[in-house]
Amino acid sequence: MTGQDRIISARWIIPVVPEHAVLEQMALVIRDGRIHDLLPRTLAVGRYPDAERLDLPTHALLPGLVNAHTHAAMTLLRGLGADQSLNVWLEQFIWPLEKRWMDREFVKAGSRLAIAEMLLSGTTCFNDMYFFPDATLEAAELMGIRMMAGLPVIGFPTRWAESPADYLRRGLELRDRYTHNARVRFALAPHAVYSVDEATLKLLSTLASELDLPVHMHLHETRKEVEDSIRIRGMTPIAYLYHLGLLNARLIAVHLTAVGPDEIRQLADAGVSAVHCPESNLKLGSGIAPVERFRHAGIRVALGTDGAASNDDLDLLGEMRTAGLLAKGAGGDPTALPAGELIRMATLEGARALGLETEIGSLEVGKSADCIAIDLSAPATTPCHDPVAQIVYAATRNQVSHVWIAGTPRVVDGRLVPDELEDILSTARNWEDRLSRGVRGEEAV
Amino acid sequence: MTGQDRIISARWIIPVVPEHAVLEQMALVIRDGRIHDLLPRTLAVGRYPDAERLDLPTHALLPGLVNAHTHAAMTLLRGLGADQSLNVWLEQFIWPLEKRWMDREFVKAGSRLAIAEMLLSGTTCFNDMYFFPDATLEAAELMGIRMMAGLPVIGFPTRWAESPADYLRRGLELRDRYTHNARVRFALAPHAVYSVDEATLKLLSTLASELDLPVHMHLHETRKEVEDSIRIRGMTPIAYLYHLGLLNARLIAVHLTAVGPDEIRQLADAGVSAVHCPESNLKLGSGIAPVERFRHAGIRVALGTDGAASNDDLDLLGEMRTAGLLAKGAGGDPTALPAGELIRMATLEGARALGLETEIGSLEVGKSADCIAIDLSAPATTPCHDPVAQIVYAATRNQVSHVWIAGTPRVVDGRLVPDELEDILSTARNWEDRLSRGVRGEEAV
Repeated sequence: MTGQDRIISARWIIPVVPEHAVLEQMALVIRDGRIHDLLPRTLAVGRYPDAERLDLPTHALLPGLVNAHTHAAMTLLRGLGADQSLNVWLEQFIWPLEKRWMDREFVKAGSRLAIAEMLLSGTTCFNDMYFFPDATLEAAELMGIRMMAGLPVIGFPTRWAESPADYLRRGLELRDRYTHNARVRFALAPHAVYSVDEATLKLLSTLASELDLPVHMHLHETRKEVEDSIRIRGMTPIAYLYHLGLLNARLIAVHLTAVGPDEIRQLADAGVSAVHCPESNLKLGSGIAPVERFRHAGIRVALGTDGAASNDDLDLLGEMRTAGLLAKGAGGDPTALPAGELIRMATLEGARALGLETEIGSLEVGKSADCIAIDLSAPATTPCHDPVAQIVYAATRNQVSHVWIAGTPRVVDGRLVPDELEDILSTARNWEDRLSRGVRGEEAV
Repeated sequence: MTGQDRIISARWIIPVVPEHAVLEQMALVIRDGRIHDLLPRTLAVGRYPDAERLDLPTHALLPGLVNAHTHAAMTLLRGLGADQSLNVWLEQFIWPLEKRWMDREFVKAGSRLAIAEMLLSGTTCFNDMYFFPDATLEAAELMGIRMMAGLPVIGFPTRWAESPADYLRRGLELRDRYTHNARVRFALAPHAVYSVDEATLKLLSTLASELDLPVHMHLHETRKEVEDSIRIRGMTPIAYLYHLGLLNARLIAVHLTAVGPDEIRQLADAGVSAVHCPESNLKLGSGIAPVERFRHAGIRVALGTDGAASNDDLDLLGEMRTAGLLAKGAGGDPTALPAGELIRMATLEGARALGLETEIGSLEVGKSADCIAIDLSAPATTPCHDPVAQIVYAATRNQVSHVWIAGTPRVVDGRLVPDELEDILSTARNWEDRLSRGVRGEEAV
């Protein structure tokens, strides 16, 4: 595959590797979907005279953001049951609506909306866990975003599958069909220790090892999850996963709010990747993950938004800010989780958690050209004494102007390419009508 | 004064009073700068056939936001010293830069930028505390925003004033000159108990009472402030203010992170208004104000952004979200500070703290037409099952489409009226160059 080279010059380039680098007046050259060169802008045109050129004079160029934990299709349930207790939220809102409405069409419409929202806010890769992953994959392929599809396994039937064995069979069949798309990866995605039986977890442990697949799982989300596990099986969920052979470098463990020093050592020794979802954890009152202690223990920490039903958006810029403010505030230390580290968590550490660090996560020659531009000329990011701080503490998602994935433009001047947004939104609004009749009890749920 | 009536119809109107009301398909009628009527949209045109009409089919209309604590001009120092300890931030960044650069021109440029940012993000009234309040007032008058100007008093000289008595004299003279603008109010603004001497605080206590002026003051921002006060004078800052006659319903007390049950009772008994600045408190590691306990004790709580140097923006929508997430997360209770209450804090409670509740803070007939529209048709706020939750948990400032203050449009379709933004930004960028040479040591600071 060949195509025209593309030169993108920007006021700032934040390559993430090397650490702390903020390059000024440099240009990035894309060839065949990969980063081919990174050089002073004054030299770029001379060296690549036939390239297409884009100059971004008030922008920062950085690697595409990696959302390390989502339930994309849940955008259709956005904001439902806000400010309710966890039980009311699940039992009166989320579960009845999913039971009544969640099917392939629901997942496709919700996934398209989620992908539009993610692309427009600078996310170029997401790690998903939901039913009908085939529908989410189809939307991701069409819209060009990079995705790790979790093959869901849970201990109750849905329209997607009947039983744990059925979930697993359907998931693996789906994986077998997707050998053609380099932007798609797979993980086994058992929901949690309390919702998947022991025999199934043992089977997943064996399969993960034989097929060399990541395992994407909620873990220690709440104190109750930990206390229940100790009461039922005499050990924490982390100890239980160790016992099952699942606590290892393949594990992408999401939430981890209820952990003490022993658990932190176990996670570090096993090489587990942690995914921090601060907004969901705060909004549901689940707890606060001790991210600074994870980092000091050498645990890799990526960032995730969780689903839009508990966040209520899929905005990694906002998530970076919340993670930073929370780490400083919870520990009373303004030097905790500095802005550069937050950008690293949302890019390279996310890529590492997904096993994609040789392909994405930094702007290095040879990697896939997954990059985004953020326009820092808005009033709230002016003056811009420190572009890294401004991206984290003051920019909003609306300042993401451009997104490329494997060198292909997916957002240009703040608009999707191709611009299917109106169709996506009007489909979502139709779902809004159907679901709200359900919430109001105008039809049996 | 007469003028053409204006009908604004919107998909949702959130009037704040009555509590919890979300009106659908209603219209608000503005006459002579005031809210003249609130009626079904289908009746509005018949009743006011000659009115100008604006239809906002995907928007929520709500009262203008009240930013109850700012240092507007500090926008020019945005992001400087991010992620540093409080001492390094103040001693190596903020104070030397202020000492070298802070003058009337600095305050004017920073205030214009701040007001542009606030108007564009839906703030229609702000409570400021900074030097050269005459320059901030001048910008506020020109740009049409409502303002409470703090008359600053601090125990060290600046270019604005030499001594506490000089600060006070200049402030009161300024107040005497502003009897002509109903959108401008004044407060006495002693910086804090540790930076203003006792004799001056006693004088301010007398003046506040004689002139019936609010007192705007930082209070219990950090544990250190409280401990120092106990060491020096044997009592907390709150007890000290009580002793000085300053702890009363005129006091607008900002921060209040380090307070226990005794202090909460003292604040409640005195009728003090609290201003919660969660992002600044988190970013500086100052602590977390116990907002839910304030509310249960009957203390009025307003919201503020603090200055952009410690936030790094003046975005009350973002501040509402952070306040909500933090209250839920810190207490482990997802029902804490529900979305409707956060909107109330950012509108009516702010107006009450400033003594302006008969004029602004809710969409009630007779009040000034200070209102804003937020477009909820963006991907991140679609579907919109719950507009109140979506405004708080998912909308960004860029979705503020229209702003009126006393019936005059100040933002239309996301643009300032008149659109002086380019001039404001280019002046701010000139300051960026000068200040950054100062930070890099290219000239003596």
